[in-house]
Amino acid sequence: MRRFLINQAKGLVDHSRRQHHHKSPSFLSPQPRPLASSPPALSRFFSSTSEMSASDSTSSLPVTLDSINPKVLKCEYAVRGEIVNIAQKLQEDLKTNKDAYPFDEIIYCNIGNPQSLGQLPIKFFREVLALCDHASLLDESETHGLFSTDSIDRAWRILDHIPGRATGAYSHSQGIKGLRDVIAAGIEARDGFPADPNDIFLTDGASPAVHMMMQLLLSSEKDGILCPIPQYPLYSASIALHGGSLVPYYLDEATGWGLEISDLKKQLEEARSKGISVRALVVINPGNPTGQVLAEENQRDIVNFCKQEGLVLLADEVYQENVYVPDKKFHSFKKVARSLGYGEKDISLVSFQSVSKGYYGECGKRGGYMEVTGFTSDVREQIYKMASVNLCSNISGQILASLVMSPPKPGDDSYDSYMAERDGILSSMAKRAKTLEDALNSLEGVTCNRAEGAMYLFPRINLPQKAIEAAEAEKTAPDAFYCKRLLNATGVVVVPGSGFGQVPGTWHFRCTILPQEDKIPAIVNRLTDFHKSFMDEFRN
Amino acid sequence: MRRFLINQAKGLVDHSRRQHHHKSPSFLSPQPRPLASSPPALSRFFSSTSEMSASDSTSSLPVTLDSINPKVLKCEYAVRGEIVNIAQKLQEDLKTNKDAYPFDEIIYCNIGNPQSLGQLPIKFFREVLALCDHASLLDESETHGLFSTDSIDRAWRILDHIPGRATGAYSHSQGIKGLRDVIAAGIEARDGFPADPNDIFLTDGASPAVHMMMQLLLSSEKDGILCPIPQYPLYSASIALHGGSLVPYYLDEATGWGLEISDLKKQLEEARSKGISVRALVVINPGNPTGQVLAEENQRDIVNFCKQEGLVLLADEVYQENVYVPDKKFHSFKKVARSLGYGEKDISLVSFQSVSKGYYGECGKRGGYMEVTGFTSDVREQIYKMASVNLCSNISGQILASLVMSPPKPGDDSYDSYMAERDGILSSMAKRAKTLEDALNSLEGVTCNRAEGAMYLFPRINLPQKAIEAAEAEKTAPDAFYCKRLLNATGVVVVPGSGFGQVPGTWHFRCTILPQEDKIPAIVNRLTDFHKSFMDEFRN
Repeated sequence: MRRFLINQAKGLVDHSRRQHHHKSPSFLSPQPRPLASSPPALSRFFSSTSEMSASDSTSSLPVTLDSINPKVLKCEYAVRGEIVNIAQKLQEDLKTNKDAYPFDEIIYCNIGNPQSLGQLPIKFFREVLALCDHASLLDESETHGLFSTDSIDRAWRILDHIPGRATGAYSHSQGIKGLRDVIAAGIEARDGFPADPNDIFLTDGASPAVHMMMQLLLSSEKDGILCPIPQYPLYSASIALHGGSLVPYYLDEATGWGLEISDLKKQLEEARSKGISVRALVVINPGNPTGQVLAEENQRDIVNFCKQEGLVLLADEVYQENVYVPDKKFHSFKKVARSLGYGEKDISLVSFQSVSKGYYGECGKRGGYMEVTGFTSDVREQIYKMASVNLCSNISGQILASLVMSPPKPGDDSYDSYMAERDGILSSMAKRAKTLEDALNSLEGVTCNRAEGAMYLFPRINLPQKAIEAAEAEKTAPDAFYCKRLLNATGVVVVPGSGFGQVPGTWHFRCTILPQEDKIPAIVNRLTDFHKSFMDEFRN
Repeated sequence: MRRFLINQAKGLVDHSRRQHHHKSPSFLSPQPRPLASSPPALSRFFSSTSEMSASDSTSSLPVTLDSINPKVLKCEYAVRGEIVNIAQKLQEDLKTNKDAYPFDEIIYCNIGNPQSLGQLPIKFFREVLALCDHASLLDESETHGLFSTDSIDRAWRILDHIPGRATGAYSHSQGIKGLRDVIAAGIEARDGFPADPNDIFLTDGASPAVHMMMQLLLSSEKDGILCPIPQYPLYSASIALHGGSLVPYYLDEATGWGLEISDLKKQLEEARSKGISVRALVVINPGNPTGQVLAEENQRDIVNFCKQEGLVLLADEVYQENVYVPDKKFHSFKKVARSLGYGEKDISLVSFQSVSKGYYGECGKRGGYMEVTGFTSDVREQIYKMASVNLCSNISGQILASLVMSPPKPGDDSYDSYMAERDGILSSMAKRAKTLEDALNSLEGVTCNRAEGAMYLFPRINLPQKAIEAAEAEKTAPDAFYCKRLLNATGVVVVPGSGFGQVPGTWHFRCTILPQEDKIPAIVNRLTDFHKSFMDEFRN
C-alpha cells in the first residue's frame, strides 16, 4: 500500500485533491499548480483547500494567485484552517442568534492552547515577568507585600544578566547569555550530561527555530526530510515553504503509534532511489497528534539510525513535561545519544523546546529555544547569521524559557504553591485524557489509542460507506465531513486527521484534552449523542 | 557607472569578492557558490564574508557548507556581522586586560538599539505591560499606590479584549482583534483616512512581516524587488533567503539622499530587459541608513510610479516618530495614496511599523505590524495562512504596538509625564544627531548629510589611495578597514557602508545617534583624534 502511494504520486495527487477539495458553489479561484512529488496521503497538506473567495476578475491589482510564490499556495496548516474559520463564523453568529443552535458556545478543541480554555498561568512565572517588565517596582516597598520573595530575587538575578537592566534592548541574537546559562544548567540537570549555552538559540516559540533548520537544510525539492505520519503540520508547512520534499514514515496505530526502524529504512531508501537527498529525521516525542511517548530502546534505535545514515535528528521535545502514564518517561534524545557514547563530533542533533506546552501553557508569550549540537563551526556560524537577521527573540519569552528550565526549588518561597499548581494541572490533564479516551473508545466504530503524553487524542473513526459517499457528494474529505457535522451539532471544534496525515483510507480527528474538567461531561455527552445520530443516519 | 555594475555582474562579483573578502590566515572553508546576478556594489550583501573557522576536515558530520541551502550562504546582515564579532571579543578581553587598550569601554553605535545605550522605556507602557503580565495585581489595593490610574484603566481595557483575560493564550493569527481596532483608530487619527483592523497583521517586530511579504512575492530569481541603495540590510538578506533578485535604485547623496523617479524607471526597465519580473518597490521613510525624510511631492511621484508599473509599494515606516527637522514631516504612504484618490482597488500597499524605534525603543519586546491594503481576498487569505503557520505574535508586543498607536492623551493621569519623557527623548535625539553630524563634517575628507529623521548618520569618507591599498593588502574592504581601525583605536563600533550598499568607489559607515548625551563629547573627541591619525598615516 505504501509503495503504491509513493509510486503513483503524481496522478493520485491530482485525483485525490479533486476528491478531497472542498469547493463552495461559487469557487472560482484558479487551481494551485500541480505538485510533483506528494503522495496522496499527504495531498491534504499541500493543496490549497482553504475557503477561497472569488478573485475579483475586474481587479487591476498586480498580485494574483498565479503570480505569488507557489510554495505559499502549496503549504497548509489545518490547525487554524478551514474548520476553524467555520467555527469562528458560527461563534460570531451565536452572539445574536443563540436560538438557532443546539449549543450555546463553541468549544475549541483544535489547538494546544491551554490558557484559552481556562488553565491559569504559573503565578511565580508571571510575578517574575511583571517585575522584569517594570523593574522600578523593585525599588518600591509595597512590592514586597505584593510579590513572593523568590520572584523578587529571581527578577533581580535576571536583570543582572541584562546589560544596563535594559529589558527593552535587542539582546545577543542567540538570547541573553545569562539566561542561556540557566537553560543549559537546566538541561544538564534534566539529562545528566553537560549542555553548552553557546548551543542554545532562543526563539519566539519553537516554530521559528524549526523554520530556521528547514531553511538551512533544504536547497530544493531534491532535499527531503523524514517526517512522521501523522505529524504536527508545522513540519509539512515549513518543508513546503522552504521548497523541500516531505518523506513520510508511518507510525503504527496498531502498536500505539510505534515507530519501526524498518519502516524508516524503507522510506529512506525509496526516497533515495528517487534521487532525493534525505537530510534529516523529525521525531516528535511525546507525539503530536498521536500522544505516544517513545520507549528508550526505540530512541536508541533512532539515534543509531541517524548516525548510520548521516541524518540530522530534529527532535521536537516541546511536550517533555506532558507524560501521563507511569510506564513511560521522557528521555531527551541528547541524553540517549550521549548515553550511547555519541558526542559532538558524532551526531547532529537539534532539540526544540517551547514555553507553550507542559504545565505552563504560555503560548502567547512566544518563548522557546533550539539546542543545536554536532555541527561544524562554519555551519554554526551560518545558523547564527540566520538568527541575527531577525535580531533576537522577545525578551519576555526568553525569560520564561529560563524559568521553565529552572523553576522554584525546594526551600524557595514559591515552591509549595508552584508544585501545587503544576501537579494540579498535570494530574488534571492525565485525568481528562483518560476520560475523553474512554468516551471515544465507547463510540461505535471508533478506536482511540491512549494519550501517553502531549495534549491530544487522535481517534480513528471507521466511517460507513454511506458517510464517505455523502462526503464525496459535498466534495469534502470524509473526516472533514464528520468534523463539520460534529461542529454544527455540538459546537466542538476538532481537526480532521487529513490535516496531520494518515494512512490512506483511514480517518481520524485530533481533539485536545484541554477543556476544563467541568466541561468534559457535557462534551462527552454531546459527542456521544452526535455520534449515535451520525451512525444512525449513515450506518450501512 | 551604474549600467557597468549590472552588466559586468558575474565577473566583477567574483573579482570584488576576492578583493573584499576578509581572510584570516587560517581560512580554509570552501568558497561559497558563485553568485549569478549580484552587481559588485551589492556583492557585499551576498558573499559569505563573516569570519569562518576552518571546517573540521576530519569531521564525519553530515552537514557542510557545500550541502546547506546556498541562499543561506548568500545572505548577509552586516548590522550584526563581522565588526560586531570583533567588538565583542574586544569587550570580553577588556574585562581582564584593561591596560592593553586606549579606551575603557566598547560603545556600540552599530545598531538602532536605544535602550542598550541608556534610553529608558516609557513608564506608562511598562506599567501597562506589567499589569497585563500579572493581572491579579489589579485585584490588590496596594496596586493603586504603585501604578498610575490610567495604566490600570488601560490594562483593564486591554484584558477585556482578550477572551478569558488569557494573556498566555495564542491569539487570532493577525493579533487580538480589540488591539487591532485600537491600532486602526490610531492610523486613522494619524492619517485622516480610515484603516481597517482586518488589514492589520501583528508580528514579532517588523522583520517577520517583511519576510512574509518577500516569501509571498518571490517565486525565483526571476522575481525582483526594487530596493534603495543604501538600504537596511534586512531587505537584501530577506530577498536572498527567499531566492529573489534585488534590483537596486540609487539614492542621490548629493541631494540629501533624494529618490529620483527617473532612476527608479531606469532600474526597473533594465531589470525587465533582463527578464526579471519586478514585483515591488521598497521605500524606507524616514530612511535607514540615510536618515532622509521624503518630501510629500516625492512620495506622490512614488505612489503614481507604483500604480503605473503595477508594483506593490512596501513602505518601511518604522521611524515615523523620528523626525528632527522643522521643514520635514512624516506622511504615511497610505495617506499620500488616498489623498491622490487611490483606494483599495487601485494600489497594493504594505506599511510596516515597529515598537523598536520612535521614542519608545522597545526593540527587545518584538512588537510590530504590517497594514496590508489593496490585495484581492484570495491573496489576502494566503497571507493569513502564512501568519497562521506560526500561530500568532507575542502578546506583550501586540499590547505595546497598541500603546504606541494610542498613547496617553491630554487629561490622562500619565499624559504630562509621558509627554515629558517623549519630548525629552526626541529633542535629545535631534541634538545628538546635529552634534555628531557637525563633528563628522569637521573631519578631513568626510562629508555627512544631515539626519532629518531615523537614528543614524551615514557619512562618506574619502579614503586616500594609500589607505585603499592597505585595505587591499589585508583583503578587507576599505570602509571595513577604516571601521576596524576606528574600533581598535576608540572602542566605537560602526558598520561599514558596504553592509548597506553604496555607489561603487565610494565609502561610508553607519553610526547611530544613540549614545547618551554625556558620552557624545568623548566619542567626538576620540573619533576626531583617530581620524587625524588615520589621515596622517595614509594621506597622499
